[in-house]
Formats: sequence, C-alpha cells, structure tokens
Amino acid sequence: MATMTPRTLSGFMELLPPAQQQLERIMEILRTTYSCYGFTPLDTPAIEASEVLLAKGGGDTEKQIYRFTKGDTDLSLRFDLTVPLAKYVALHYNDLVFPFRRYQIGKVYRGERAQRGRFREFYQADIDIIGDGKLSVLNEAEVPAIIYQVFSKLGLSRFQIRVNNRKILNGFYAMLGLTQQSGDIMRTVDKLDKIGTEKVAGLLTGELGLTMEQADEILKFIAITGTNQEVLTALEGYRGRHELFDLGLTELSTVAGYLGDFGVPEENFAVDLTIARGLDYYTGTVYETTLLDHPEIGSVCSGGRYDNLAEYYTNKQLPGVGISIGLTRLFYVLGEQNLLNPALPTAPADVLILPMTEDLSPAIALATELRNTGLRTQIQWEEKKFKQKMSYADKLSIPYLILLGEDEISAGVVACKDMNAGTQEKLSPADAIAHIQAGLAKLNEGSVILG
Amino acid sequence: MATMTPRTLSGFMELLPPAQQQLERIMEILRTTYSCYGFTPLDTPAIEASEVLLAKGGGDTEKQIYRFTKGDTDLSLRFDLTVPLAKYVALHYNDLVFPFRRYQIGKVYRGERAQRGRFREFYQADIDIIGDGKLSVLNEAEVPAIIYQVFSKLGLSRFQIRVNNRKILNGFYAMLGLTQQSGDIMRTVDKLDKIGTEKVAGLLTGELGLTMEQADEILKFIAITGTNQEVLTALEGYRGRHELFDLGLTELSTVAGYLGDFGVPEENFAVDLTIARGLDYYTGTVYETTLLDHPEIGSVCSGGRYDNLAEYYTNKQLPGVGISIGLTRLFYVLGEQNLLNPALPTAPADVLILPMTEDLSPAIALATELRNTGLRTQIQWEEKKFKQKMSYADKLSIPYLILLGEDEISAGVVACKDMNAGTQEKLSPADAIAHIQAGLAKLNEGSVILG
Repeated sequence: MATMTPRTLSGFMELLPPAQQQLERIMEILRTTYSCYGFTPLDTPAIEASEVLLAKGGGDTEKQIYRFTKGDTDLSLRFDLTVPLAKYVALHYNDLVFPFRRYQIGKVYRGERAQRGRFREFYQADIDIIGDGKLSVLNEAEVPAIIYQVFSKLGLSRFQIRVNNRKILNGFYAMLGLTQQSGDIMRTVDKLDKIGTEKVAGLLTGELGLTMEQADEILKFIAITGTNQEVLTALEGYRGRHELFDLGLTELSTVAGYLGDFGVPEENFAVDLTIARGLDYYTGTVYETTLLDHPEIGSVCSGGRYDNLAEYYTNKQLPGVGISIGLTRLFYVLGEQNLLNPALPTAPADVLILPMTEDLSPAIALATELRNTGLRTQIQWEEKKFKQKMSYADKLSIPYLILLGEDEISAGVVACKDMNAGTQEKLSPADAIAHIQAGLAKLNEGSVILG
Repeated sequence: MATMTPRTLSGFMELLPPAQQQLERIMEILRTTYSCYGFTPLDTPAIEASEVLLAKGGGDTEKQIYRFTKGDTDLSLRFDLTVPLAKYVALHYNDLVFPFRRYQIGKVYRGERAQRGRFREFYQADIDIIGDGKLSVLNEAEVPAIIYQVFSKLGLSRFQIRVNNRKILNGFYAMLGLTQQSGDIMRTVDKLDKIGTEKVAGLLTGELGLTMEQADEILKFIAITGTNQEVLTALEGYRGRHELFDLGLTELSTVAGYLGDFGVPEENFAVDLTIARGLDYYTGTVYETTLLDHPEIGSVCSGGRYDNLAEYYTNKQLPGVGISIGLTRLFYVLGEQNLLNPALPTAPADVLILPMTEDLSPAIALATELRNTGLRTQIQWEEKKFKQKMSYADKLSIPYLILLGEDEISAGVVACKDMNAGTQEKLSPADAIAHIQAGLAKLNEGSVILG
C-alpha cells in the first residue's frame, strides 16, 4: 500500500526526540532570560503580503525569499523577524507603550543554496527595544548583560561579547575626510586577518586612492587593542576632532562603564574596533559574540543600535537596539562540536510504571498520584514480555522504573528502580516520589552546553 | 519616507502583548500537561515536498493548501500535524521507540475563505501515541485523563468529554446488514438535532431506502442516553449479535472503567452514541470535548483511535490514538466570550525601577539583584518627566514600582510601591524581593480561563 518514500526537504531541520528535548531546553532558557529583562513575547505570522514584507526591497535576500500567490494575493514567507517587527510596531503604534521591549523566537525562511549547516527554515531568537522618537543609550548598555546571562545560563563561560560603536567609526573616517569611502574602507580593513597589513595598505592607497597618511592613520586606529580601559584611553586621544566621534566614544564609555553593575565580568566583554556589522542601518553600539574556543563558528549573537526601525511603514522616528541569535545554526554547530551535554535527561518520562497484575487500577492510580506531583509518568501496559518492557525503559533512558505487583500492592509499597545506579528499593509511594524528585534534581543539575 | 501602509493579512492572528501573554500561558499549560503523560515534544518543518504531503490526496482540504514552487521543487505548507507525523514516524522508524508518544504545538496553514473566527494560519496542539504493529486499548482509556487535566488546569470545570467507539457503530450497522450505507446513515442521523426524528426517519426510509424496521432500530439505538452506566448496560443488550460490536463495547467499557483511577470525575465524561467523527480513518474510541455553557463553540478537543497512521509511506502497520486542540480558534472564541481571566498579570515586567539619581549604578545593581532571583525587571531610564514614567508603569500594568533616590541609597533601602494596592513602603532589598514574590504568587493564583 505504501506509495511514497517519506523524506524531509534538505535544509530543513527535523530532530529526533532526544535532540529536540535539548533544543527545547535552550529555548526555555532564552524565554526565561529575555523575560527577566522585561521583554514581552510576540508571535507574528510567518506569511506576509509581499508588498509589505518587501517594501524596503530584499537586497541580497530577495532571491532567497519564498514568494508565491494564493488566489490573487502575492505572499511571502518572512526571511527575518526584524521586518515583521517594523510592520507590527508601525501597525499597532497606538496600542503599544514605548520603549517597547519584545522578544520573538520564530522560524524564518530563506531559500539558500543547500549546504551542510545551512538551513532554509531556521529559528531566530530576537530581542529589540524600540523607542518612540528617542531611546536612551542605557538600553545599549543593558544588551551585553542580556547576552552574558543567556550564554552563561546555557552553560558557557569562554565567550566574548565584542562591542564597537558605529559613530566612532563614522566619526573617525569623517576626521580623515573619507566619509564617502568609509564603506569601501571598512570592507577592505575587514580583510586584515586574511591578507595582512601590507596588502590592506596596498588596496587602500591603490584601488581606493587614499594617501599614505590616511592609510597609516587607519591602520594605526584599527591596531588599537588591549584591555577595555586601554582601548578607551587610546580613543580619548582622538577626542575633540569630530563631534560624531566624540558622541560615539561617550556612548561606548557609558556601555563599558556600567558592565560591572549589570553583572558582566570584564573577561566576557571586549571593545573591538574591527567590529562594524555589515548592515547599513546600525548607527550606534554594535555587538558580536564569539565562542573563544570555537572562533570558526563566527558570531553567535549579533546586533546593534539603529535609528529608524520602520521608515517604510511610518513617518514616526522609531530608534531601537536589538540582537539576534541564529538558533537553528547555533544548535547544529553545538551538536557537530559535541558541545551539547549528553548527561542531561532527554527521556520522554521521568518514571515508567510496570504493572505486574491483571487489574491495572493500582498502577493507574499510582500514575495519577505521580503526575499530580509533576512527575512525567508513563505506564507500560502493552502486551509484551518483561524483558521487552525493560528494554523500552532502557532505550528511552527513562531514569526511574516502578514495579508494582501483588506483593507491593498489598504491602502499600512500590519497588522503585534507579536505572542509572542499578539499585532497587521498596518504598511507600510518598517516599518514592521524594526519592525520584531528589534524583531528578541531581540529573538536571548540569548545563545544556558544555562550557 | 513612509511608502507602504503596514497591514497584517486577514485570517492571520497577530496579538497585542497582553493577549499574547495569555496565549503563552495556555501553551505552557499544554506543554506541561502533555509532558506529564510522557509525551515528547516534536517540531517538524512547516514546508514539505508536495508529493510527500499530498501522497494521500488532500480531499476537501486540497484546494485550501498553500502550494508553490521554489526553483524546481514543488512545495506545500502543512495543513495539519498528522500527515507530517506520519511522514516522521515512517522516515525515522528505526530511530524511534514504540509506543511513540509525541506532542506538537505548531502552526498549520489552510487558505480558507476569510471569515470572522476562521484562520488561515493557526496553531494546532496535538498528541498522538503510535504503536508498532499493535497498541493497547489502555492508551485510549488514558486520553480522557489528558483532556480532563488540560481543561482543568486551564481553569474550566463545566466541560464534557464525549466518547464513542467506531466499532460499536460499524458493528451495529453490520448487524442490520447496512455496512455499505453506514456512512450515509451516520451523516443523516447527524442531522437529528437540526431537523428532528421524523424527518430523519423519512430520509432513512426514503433517500437511503431502509426498511421501517431498520430505521426504527437506528433511531432506538441513537436514542440510548443516560448515565455512563445506563448507556453501557443498554448496549450490553446488543451483545452477542456481532463480533465487531462486542469488541467495541468491551473497549468502551474498559475506557469508562478506568476513569476513576485516572482521576476523571464522572460528570466530565459521557458515553455518547451520536459521536462519530467525520474522518474515515478512526477505527476505535472517538472523542469530542464540549464546553457545557458554550455548546455553540462545538468540540474544542477531538480525536480518536486509528489503525494505520502511515500507510502511504510504509508497509508497517502503525496504529495510534490522538487528539487535537485547535488552539488559535479556541483562544479567539474564549476572547470573544470574555472567558479569558483579565485578573492575571500580562505586564512585560514584575517590577519597574525608577532611578532618582544621576548615577545609575545603584539602580542597575539592584535590577541585577532582582533578576538573579527571577523577578522580571525593567529600569525606567529614559529622559522623561516623573509623571510620564509613572504612566508607563500604569499603562503596562506593571504591578510593582521601586523608587530609588539618594535617601534610599544611603539608608540601604528601596521605596517599594504596590501599584494595585496603592501602598508604598521602605524595605531592604531582600525584604522587597520577598514582598514582591509573595504578591506575585497571589496575582498569579487564578486560572487562565474563567471556568
């Protein structure tokens, strides 16, 4: 009767249950952490009218967009969560209270060329703070705290939040009279790691037509490194030469200055003048986050400050600051690198009850009792051999087994087996519940990601 | 600069933050309850290859499907969560352990004619238990317990889980020699409430060509009502006349018999011989759930037992039992009926800190302390007048406000204002945290739905 070989489209992540449980844990940590900073959850449609979604023009992403018609409506699947946010804020402006803080964890779609680790359907986990007319730089100062909390709670310690300010970069290039070329210069300077100082200097004075002095100034500026305080001190040496630069430096100092109060350790934060973020709309602080032991992954959480979220939908000025985690890709890479903690329970249940009597009433009543305390409970009532029933618990890594036979029932106890320890004891139901809950608390102690 | 009037497509639910918070609460209750019964979360792609998704043929839904091509791939958006489950189980058969229990809460897409309360993108919240080759009827007996828990935890008490068994219906029609016509008969009998006994009898003997005796037997059978025990006793009167009927009656008795052990009160459960469920693939117990004070809503949770989940994808026999909640529609209707509890907090934060000093360090450090205890905290640091800052907390219904000025800082206290009570007291940070947590516990006491 089977007529079709089942398959899942390439570029679409579909996890087996244990991996899905791990992803759910990560999502739960994101939701809880974002909530702790006063962000409200949002859920916008995956489909939007094409003319609305593409009002700005999709740029490079335009040909990746899933676009189609239904009836006579031209529809597109969202390719990020930022454009739908812009639409949402413009559309519901009168019903929102500003600054508006929202988080959204949702699937977005990009028909990229399929390749390993690239996904066409993937989760983004975004937060944004949107102001009405203006928005304090303190919001930019708070963002590193949120990034720090997220990755710490996931279990990481060896990561770095790298921060820069677009006003510093733009102000610096304006000082040199290079405002027009700043985009080209940043793209060239970005190749520093790959092609070296000499070749970059050659490109700057060659292709881009800069003077030797200008090229020297740029390379000297980009070479500013050290502790946060050292970098900020070096930057103070440029103060007074350009207003935009000075403003950017003050902002960056504010962001760096409150880190301690926000609970961000110095070692997880770095002022880094090479961070620019490709997108044109960033106008203030910009963020990238790298795993120190896995630089090859690139930034796992990026974003920045922008001045005009929804210019295509409204004449209101809506500045904001936001960050995005490419969750599906991050999860994939963590799995590839064996960084997902295998010790955390991924079983569908905490307890499996094995009834050893014909009448299932006692087993069912016990399951009801366990569930009422929040224990995730299954009853194995299929007609199978005892060995197969044990193997079911084993294959699923269910940590506790309860055997319930005539003897136990008449004695008012249960035989509770710890599948990890291999031990078994007869306990009253209440004691078994306490025993299992204590054991689960221990099993759940570890973090999702191996730091 | 605005070039486009923002809009959201009709038939697509997009909620304002307070309503979204309510929906999130409901989803959280569903996740927790399903987990308690040993179901593992699953997340399959929203897009599938059309030939895979439509292997069975879409039937009535086929023209509602969002189908399109990308490159040369023919794609469709899923229109339910059952077909993707069938694909998943067939595809990953060797990696799954059976019985396989999964829940999935996900968006599905149907391009229905837009009308009030009908959605083109909507959440379904499904559970299914899939057996490999066979599956005990006890799983069918457990389903009413899950439905009961879900709706009880949501806050409802006046609801009824109505249960029937397709084997009883099919066996009964077979007794009368009416197996061929059983589908037509059930559709006709379904009109009983609308057109009355006499007209139904007329249709049965007229259009369908039944004898008077057959029509009488059917009407007598359908008229069997009473307590669960009364209905079961009446059905016992038919035992011995047809094997399939007898099997169905035994199954129904098993389902009804374990209710008490599963913690389902008698008044929330009814054996109802008029329940058939339209879908052909149900072969055993079928379920519908109605809100007793809102029968016009129809069934809010339906499903049943089927014998062959994935016949289009595999030759393996995969029987199962499942139920589905049309979450988006349910949420919409609850809102329309004013059944969503307005007393539950929907604010983005539990506490808003109002710094009254130039230096924000003490306020930020306090926020960090509050967040570390899990309190959802915002700091109001925008350059606004005091009155506007108060109005921000007010408009968002943030329940607690903390004022932090020079006096408080030097005295090591905070001024904590209960926005609902209108009271304000100076407390140590630790006492403020305990005070707020106690207050929040009270605020969160109510249920999401007004029972």
